[in-house]
Amino acid sequence: MAQMDLTVVGKSVGRIDGMNQVSGRAVFGTDVKLPGMLFGRTLRSPHAHARIRHIDTSRAERLRGVRAVLTCLNVKTPRYGRFLKDQEVFPRTVRYVGDRVAAVAATDPDIADEVLELIHVEYEVLPAAFEIADALKPGAAVIHEELSQYKNYKGPYQHPNIAAILHYGKGDIAQGLKEADHVFEERFETHPVHQVYVEPHATVAQADPSGKVTIWSSTQDPFEVQEETAELLGLPEAKVRVIMTAVGGGFGGKGHLIDEPVAALLSQRTGRPVKLVMSREEEFMASQPRHPCVIESKIAVKKDGTLTGRAVRAIFDTGAYGGFTPMPVPGGITRMGGPYRIPHVKIEGWRVYTNKVSFGQYRAPGDPQAAFAMESHMDMVADALGLDPIDFRLKNALQEGDLSPIGEKWDGIGFTETLKRARSLGAWDRRSSRPGHGVGVGCSERSTGSGTSSAVVKLNEDGSLTLLTGAADIGTGAKTILAQITAEIMGVPFEALDVIAADTEATPYDKGSGASRTTFAAGNAVRLAAEDLRGKVLEYAAERLEAAAEDLVLEKGRVSVKGSPERGVSLHDLSHRRFRVEGGPLIGNGTFLENRRNGPNFGTHVAEVEVDPDTGVVRVLSLIAVHDVGRAINPTTTSGQVEGGVAQGIGYAVTEQMVIKDGVVQNPSLMTYLVPTAADLPRIQSVLVEGHLGPGPFGAKGTGEAPTVPTAAAIANAVYNAVGVRIKALPLTNEKVYWALKQLKKQA
Amino acid sequence: MAQMDLTVVGKSVGRIDGMNQVSGRAVFGTDVKLPGMLFGRTLRSPHAHARIRHIDTSRAERLRGVRAVLTCLNVKTPRYGRFLKDQEVFPRTVRYVGDRVAAVAATDPDIADEVLELIHVEYEVLPAAFEIADALKPGAAVIHEELSQYKNYKGPYQHPNIAAILHYGKGDIAQGLKEADHVFEERFETHPVHQVYVEPHATVAQADPSGKVTIWSSTQDPFEVQEETAELLGLPEAKVRVIMTAVGGGFGGKGHLIDEPVAALLSQRTGRPVKLVMSREEEFMASQPRHPCVIESKIAVKKDGTLTGRAVRAIFDTGAYGGFTPMPVPGGITRMGGPYRIPHVKIEGWRVYTNKVSFGQYRAPGDPQAAFAMESHMDMVADALGLDPIDFRLKNALQEGDLSPIGEKWDGIGFTETLKRARSLGAWDRRSSRPGHGVGVGCSERSTGSGTSSAVVKLNEDGSLTLLTGAADIGTGAKTILAQITAEIMGVPFEALDVIAADTEATPYDKGSGASRTTFAAGNAVRLAAEDLRGKVLEYAAERLEAAAEDLVLEKGRVSVKGSPERGVSLHDLSHRRFRVEGGPLIGNGTFLENRRNGPNFGTHVAEVEVDPDTGVVRVLSLIAVHDVGRAINPTTTSGQVEGGVAQGIGYAVTEQMVIKDGVVQNPSLMTYLVPTAADLPRIQSVLVEGHLGPGPFGAKGTGEAPTVPTAAAIANAVYNAVGVRIKALPLTNEKVYWALKQLKKQA
Repeated sequence: MAQMDLTVVGKSVGRIDGMNQVSGRAVFGTDVKLPGMLFGRTLRSPHAHARIRHIDTSRAERLRGVRAVLTCLNVKTPRYGRFLKDQEVFPRTVRYVGDRVAAVAATDPDIADEVLELIHVEYEVLPAAFEIADALKPGAAVIHEELSQYKNYKGPYQHPNIAAILHYGKGDIAQGLKEADHVFEERFETHPVHQVYVEPHATVAQADPSGKVTIWSSTQDPFEVQEETAELLGLPEAKVRVIMTAVGGGFGGKGHLIDEPVAALLSQRTGRPVKLVMSREEEFMASQPRHPCVIESKIAVKKDGTLTGRAVRAIFDTGAYGGFTPMPVPGGITRMGGPYRIPHVKIEGWRVYTNKVSFGQYRAPGDPQAAFAMESHMDMVADALGLDPIDFRLKNALQEGDLSPIGEKWDGIGFTETLKRARSLGAWDRRSSRPGHGVGVGCSERSTGSGTSSAVVKLNEDGSLTLLTGAADIGTGAKTILAQITAEIMGVPFEALDVIAADTEATPYDKGSGASRTTFAAGNAVRLAAEDLRGKVLEYAAERLEAAAEDLVLEKGRVSVKGSPERGVSLHDLSHRRFRVEGGPLIGNGTFLENRRNGPNFGTHVAEVEVDPDTGVVRVLSLIAVHDVGRAINPTTTSGQVEGGVAQGIGYAVTEQMVIKDGVVQNPSLMTYLVPTAADLPRIQSVLVEGHLGPGPFGAKGTGEAPTVPTAAAIANAVYNAVGVRIKALPLTNEKVYWALKQLKKQA
Repeated sequence: MAQMDLTVVGKSVGRIDGMNQVSGRAVFGTDVKLPGMLFGRTLRSPHAHARIRHIDTSRAERLRGVRAVLTCLNVKTPRYGRFLKDQEVFPRTVRYVGDRVAAVAATDPDIADEVLELIHVEYEVLPAAFEIADALKPGAAVIHEELSQYKNYKGPYQHPNIAAILHYGKGDIAQGLKEADHVFEERFETHPVHQVYVEPHATVAQADPSGKVTIWSSTQDPFEVQEETAELLGLPEAKVRVIMTAVGGGFGGKGHLIDEPVAALLSQRTGRPVKLVMSREEEFMASQPRHPCVIESKIAVKKDGTLTGRAVRAIFDTGAYGGFTPMPVPGGITRMGGPYRIPHVKIEGWRVYTNKVSFGQYRAPGDPQAAFAMESHMDMVADALGLDPIDFRLKNALQEGDLSPIGEKWDGIGFTETLKRARSLGAWDRRSSRPGHGVGVGCSERSTGSGTSSAVVKLNEDGSLTLLTGAADIGTGAKTILAQITAEIMGVPFEALDVIAADTEATPYDKGSGASRTTFAAGNAVRLAAEDLRGKVLEYAAERLEAAAEDLVLEKGRVSVKGSPERGVSLHDLSHRRFRVEGGPLIGNGTFLENRRNGPNFGTHVAEVEVDPDTGVVRVLSLIAVHDVGRAINPTTTSGQVEGGVAQGIGYAVTEQMVIKDGVVQNPSLMTYLVPTAADLPRIQSVLVEGHLGPGPFGAKGTGEAPTVPTAAAIANAVYNAVGVRIKALPLTNEKVYWALKQLKKQA
């Protein structure tokens, strides 16, 4: 469909839930209030690794207002996890400071707080391992003794703390190294950061006397919560209903069970609804922040700058549990080769247990780590070869028809255009213009994830439409975009449509809002459902208008014969007649499944920084973010994604860091964990490149995660450009830059 | 499907919502509580007919806590009504004592009560007409001057207070009268009674800042509420969501808008959710009780008892408004001929406005009136001809293949069997056995109503099922029955299934729970949806099992090859694979529309009474209720319908009566309006005749209304049998019987 044909798609219509959000009327998890509701709290382990010898809950249970105290002594549930089934609701051995020891429900939040102090736990403290290197030592504390699946691993680092190892690549890396004139080797490190969604996790569960459990949750993935909770509780999925509340940000951190099964178990035990809301401190100590990672990077290149090979070993610290992610090793492992044409690639991804908070999904899991390493390294190679960093990238950029570094075939490759656009916008021309001022580039690719989405579009009796989608709008504008797709295909005004989303009973299945898949996969399901309905409407109208369905047009809420607009009928009249005379509503169904990653969103960021040579303070002056989005269904929400992603990327690069000492998060508050605020941010210039159409509806590509991936690398490269300091371990704190500058002066 | 093949259908499984109901966890309308919710109240007219000159709300608006005062001066909405569009939310001319003059919303229920007294209304009182006879006099007060549609009526009773006249029949009544040896003429009268559902009307509306309105309502017909509210408010249906709460009885009385648009308007005005709950007094003065009726009845018969003709004029008093019913004249008008084979029939039905509360739908609207007249008259004819009343009915009973008195063709006619079974159960043998003791018979037919129903069945990933139906379970067990149909067809255990119902956004369209149509029409839609899903499952399994779909069986949650049970796959595995590998969930859709009335439920009641000759007190000793139900999907819930219907029939016959004087209900409380309690009821023997299969799923017929239709006639005939007194105007109060006995003695 050409641009000029579109009436709603491509327009920045206001968000369908916008008025409710800004007026404070949206119901978030913590706003859910049910009659007779109890308040839950969690007792967490003070030890990083310990066996629970005994728990005495007798005093706690006697406290007035206490309705239930659950522990590993009175609750048995199967192990669970998205891929690695290594999690327990109430583990007998706690594995990090913050692991769940007990949960209580009381009539009043203050009583629930108080009762935690009356639970007496006897621990047998065990040796712990806090960092990857410690965990991999021979004789290190074994963190999951019960999991034997990797004990037989025969690699060079055979160790029970290796949760998983994956391999990706193509070609023959030995050949790639042989063909090269130079092979560069570096080691990069990244740090743990937190999503810091504005709204902490909140859930309310209500177990009916009939055995049914209804859960309201601030989740990104209601069907995942349904499936796993049903399995944990031993119920058919039909008896577990999960209703997504309004969500104040997720960024991947709300993609897996946290407190939902606990609330359900407490409700089953008490017969009353139970609410659990995490505090900010609990979020830092016991949710699922971004994995720290060690990356051993090798780039093989000819004199002229042609890449011949790429070898990487990336070791992700998964913390105490790996069940938060849907892959054995975070998905960014597949993108360690960057958006480049490289014939020989060998990637090895590890996941290692430590006695820390569990790391999980945070906006493009593994990708910012991969991009920081690859793009820093690419810059170092360009420098060594005396090439302009952008020219070097352009030379090796993936082109339409190329296979990705790990051999994937993709639709729509607009990488080169993002590089050229980013270079053309002024900042790059100011590169190396004055001391302390620098400009750097970073690039990335983020394809969209897999899984099923399905949708239903109902034609109401008055010709208006109701879209049912299982997809979760976690603040991204997904509902608005899905509504635009429906309105466009059905030829109705945007206002004559509403969306019901993310209720496992009322709406059809969706794999969840993650992996940038909503516009792509849920969007395609909605497209198919709308096309199905459109076909049924035209067929029905064809009989009424005595014309062939293919000679009809459906626009502005009216079906008419092409070229004879007077020979037509409104959707209202058509639907009314259908309901009353000929057999009920017309319903369109759509299901979409993509099992490979596709629709890559290419991005080039150009960062401009100022570095204070005396203090090492890095100030980001501007950030140009160019993304190949295929088609922007709604330019405003798409740019919103870009700006938000960049803001998180800047925090990742410069100010944000979870400081963890002996397994204890030292800065579990927004006073000490520094998220950049609006006032701290530079001008972000978001540029959407359209036309390299992807496999999403109307050629759209997912843009949820891509914008946060290359930012840190661009900033690190800009810092190098400004002061000649190469920081290979994130973040770029002023202390680190200061000491590196000192070192540099000493060497000079 | 033969009886022996069925595993869930035909079994008295427990109600799917039973535990929630009996444990007090079901959420009824009044239980809905939303943050910031306001409380609404209604100011009602003290006059039966008046023009509003002015309303001064200034004092009311100044009261602290008052958020809105709505009247006809500041709200303009179009006229509405289910068929006759004669209703207004805030009429400028009030037409009955109780008509809505103003509505208020306040932060506290007490303030809302108080503020009503501060609204000053200036009325111009108009002449009123309270009874049918008065309303039809030349020069009578004209109740709907604004409605001109019937002013051009050219019949013998041209009068602006005639809201509608309908004609039904077949043959040539003149011929019928000519062929007869005797023509009997009588006049019967019936009285107003109220449904007295345990739960009064309750609704909460929330208008979002986005313009969307969500309504929680104790309604029988959420889609009707959606449609009419959307029209009233000028919104697309997609922007009005109606969610049915648990309903504590409806009996037709919750089948039309009452306070929903008022709550919505108040919420739009205040920006906050608003709750309106009617008091019991308001229910009596301003809901929609059963129409009083005058019936001029003519029966033409040969000497041997063969009916040759039937002529009826039935005049229904509709009160102030006729919009509560979906037909111009209550549907019972079509059944004035009874379940008999009569060649020549002429029925004329009138609906007349009076200045009383509006009468509307109450369990088989018009039918108990029709049956009382027809069956009393039949008894009188049998008596005059010296025939046994049951023999007389058997002689004329409709047989398979016969057309109904108004020419309808029906599937499944088991009337004769109900008569014979009722006679065989003992009571009939005790007829006329001792003075003051009597046994009488009454019969009826109640076919099911028309309209679209649709349903969706979703296969969850674990093989469990979720049924989505728009149908409303108003306490009848409908959800359970629809679940049984689904489980039977899908071959899954009843426990692996849940139902979501009656939410205009989440569930597909249903015309509403009325006219005994739920098991029939919604049941057929569910059957079609389950069959659609079953077909898809078998087709999908056929590929996996490398067999033809028609060679597969689906039972106990497993698909296998006929005769080779080991060659099979569980629904769980099948669905899991389908979700993960091959493209998402399987969804079955079903839509059913019946535009004619079909599936007649024939009933014969035999009442046994004792009449105190000194006081005239009628005591019902036993009641045998035999119904031709086609197939009982759930015998317990079906018998529950029969017992409840009989209880209301006994109340109608003997104790219940709205006493209305000058338009004012004199007994608007349960202290003075006498509903029989469990302690007052005799033994009710419910007998279900199966096998005369109707057009419902598995041959079921609707049984919601039929059981209340013939009861009053059976009791009236039993009273005649006991003491020789023929009461032709309901109810059979002891005063009436006493004076009739006196009269009888005087004549003797």
